[in-house]
This record gives sequence, C-alpha cells and structure tokens, in this order.
Amino acid sequence: MGDGVTAARRSPGRPRKADAEQRILDAAIDEYLERGATGFTIDGVARRAGVGKSTVYLRWPDRDTLLVDSVLARSRAIEDVDTGALRDDLIALSANMLRFLLDPVGFATLRLTVEAVASRAAPQVATDVADRHRRAAGLVLTRAADRGELINPVTQARVIECLYGAITLKVLALGIEADTIGDVEIAAACTELVDMLLPLLLEHGQPPQDSAR
Amino acid sequence: MGDGVTAARRSPGRPRKADAEQRILDAAIDEYLERGATGFTIDGVARRAGVGKSTVYLRWPDRDTLLVDSVLARSRAIEDVDTGALRDDLIALSANMLRFLLDPVGFATLRLTVEAVASRAAPQVATDVADRHRRAAGLVLTRAADRGELINPVTQARVIECLYGAITLKVLALGIEADTIGDVEIAAACTELVDMLLPLLLEHGQPPQDSAR
Repeated sequence: MGDGVTAARRSPGRPRKADAEQRILDAAIDEYLERGATGFTIDGVARRAGVGKSTVYLRWPDRDTLLVDSVLARSRAIEDVDTGALRDDLIALSANMLRFLLDPVGFATLRLTVEAVASRAAPQVATDVADRHRRAAGLVLTRAADRGELINPVTQARVIECLYGAITLKVLALGIEADTIGDVEIAAACTELVDMLLPLLLEHGQPPQDSAR
Repeated sequence: MGDGVTAARRSPGRPRKADAEQRILDAAIDEYLERGATGFTIDGVARRAGVGKSTVYLRWPDRDTLLVDSVLARSRAIEDVDTGALRDDLIALSANMLRFLLDPVGFATLRLTVEAVASRAAPQVATDVADRHRRAAGLVLTRAADRGELINPVTQARVIECLYGAITLKVLALGIEADTIGDVEIAAACTELVDMLLPLLLEHGQPPQDSAR
C-alpha cells in the first residue's frame, strides 16, 4: 500500500509518469467524493483521469488500494507541529485535526473507517490515518519531555484520545460545510480543550513553566 | 419523526397493528444491516416484514424516516443510569455508550451520522442519538449537583465530549466484532477514562467524598 506513490517520488526523471499518477489520484478523490465508496470504480477513475484502465492497474492492484492511497495522498497536512511549547503544539495539533476533518477529503478518511468497521473489513485507511495522527502527537510529547517537561506516561495516550475524540464529535455535530466554523472559532475551541486537558498530561498536574500564562 | 412508534404505543387495543409495526421496524434494521443505507428500500423492508408497501407508507412517509425510526427504536438502552454516586454513574454511562456502539445497530447510528454529514444531509439520527446520550449525562450531573457535589459549569459539556469522543475512537480502533472486547475490559477502559477526567468535572479539581476510594 502506498508503494505506487513512493515509487513515483523516487523517479524524478520520469515526469510524465508521475503526472499520470497525480492525475489518477486527483481523479480518484473526485470520483469518491461524487459517488461514495459504493460507486467508486477503477473504470470511472480512469475515464475521469483520461488514462487507460491498464495504466491505473499498473500502479494499483485494486480499487480499495487506489481509494485509500488517493485519500492518504491528500492527507499530508497533519504532521510537523513544532512551536517550541507543549501547550501551543497541542493547540496546533488539534486545530490541524479539526481542519483536516472539516475538509471533505479528510472527512472521507473518517467515513471510510466507519464503513470498514461496519462491514468488518480491515480499516486500512483508518489505521494509516489514525497512526499518523498519533505519531504527530507522540512527536510533540517526546519533544516536550526532551525539553524537561514532565509528561505523565500513564495518561498520555488517553489524553490524546480524549482530545482527538472530542474533535471528531465536534465535526459530527457541526457538519463539514466550510462556513460552519472559521479559523477564530477553531483556535478558540482547540485552546479550550487543550487548556482543560493539559494538566492531566503533566506529572502531578502542575502546568509547565512556558504555558502558565 | 418517531410518531408512528408513539402512536402504536398508545393503542393497546390494537395488538395486530402494533405487531406489524414492530415487524416492520425489525425488518428495517435487518435490511439496513445487510444492505447498508444505499441498498435500503421501503420495498425490501415490506417484503422482509411480510406486509404490503402501503402498510409501511401508512406509518412512514419515506425510507429515511423509517430507517432512522428503526435504528432509534433499537437504541433505547442508553438512559436511566443512577447508582447514587457520580463516579459510578459516569462509568456506567460510558460503558453503556461503549456497548451501544459495539452493537451493530448502535454502530449504525454512527454510520448514518457520518453518511449524513458527508452528504450534507440533516443528520436526524445523529441529532436524536447524540441528544439522548447528552441528556443521560446531563441527568447524572444534575443529580450529583443535587447531592451537593460541586460540578464545574464551565467544563462539564467539554468533559462529556471528551468521554464520549474517546469511546467513539476506541470503537473505531477495536471494530465491532462481539469478541474484541468483553465486559471486564469495557469496565476497565471506562473506569480509567472516568478516573482521569473526573477531577476536571469538579470545582477546584478535588475529588468528591464518595469516589475517593
């Protein structure tokens, strides 16, 4: 999974192929957003991308792999949060996740997850996206520990689950219309959540020096 | 919405009608679990219930109303938690929610919600089920306040959102196979979550007398 994408990235001398790949990934997203998982076919994607079916099959063995790859390819904007302070990192992290889910493509990862769970299929996209979110949080916490902040090893996974869980429910309540929530509300909602949960992350519950303002 | 069900309950002298209603609701659930929302039709439900289409249309104007009603009719086991202690109430409440979502019918409410959000439809079932969960939590907190426990009005909605959100993500990670999690693990997971979040619910963060064991 994802090997097609990686392979393409490693072939800078073949722009035409990489081009077709990007066109296919873009077409796959559009096809999914328009038709949902049930109406999603390799045929439809190939037609939309203006390539032959065999070009698609060269890179992706089946529709599920293509669907998951295309969603993942558009879900890059999660990682790499580093403001230098734990509180601000967590606010940025949760704002990223909220923005990610408010975007139809980001929301598609949640929808694919729920569909996979409902049909008892392996939720590949779920695992991949959830792993990426958790890894991003793990990096933030590791850096905080490196700076000398005392992260509670017992609570940390559970606090992140509460943070991401609350944000997921917020999106379900708000809907994904772009105008339901603006940047100011996103920042406010994430700050409230982080300020409430932060003491649970720290040993003995004291706030760290750099976020006690 | 839901009026068909209520009306039937008010007609104890007409068991045959109530019977057909229950058969239709049961058939609708089975039809949904087998075919998903896209394959769900009034026709299919009527055939499965062994009634005429007109019998279904007498009570439900369209397939969406029937789908939502049938899921809600099976989602009764959420409310009425009252152990006499806030901590135990919250543990029971979250265990109920976890069990609810692990059940395919309960999980269907989450799936319908996600599908409704994705297609920008009004997530009727979402609103109804979320309201019911929130009402149950509200009752628990009101009773705690009546007993003299100092509930923090600023954090309470957010804490419940974290609790329910973390449980929702847990189900997405576990899947809904009945054997992925037993009663002991459910109790343990919910106790851990509640014990972590409980101080945030209380004014000044002190644990209440009756839960400090």
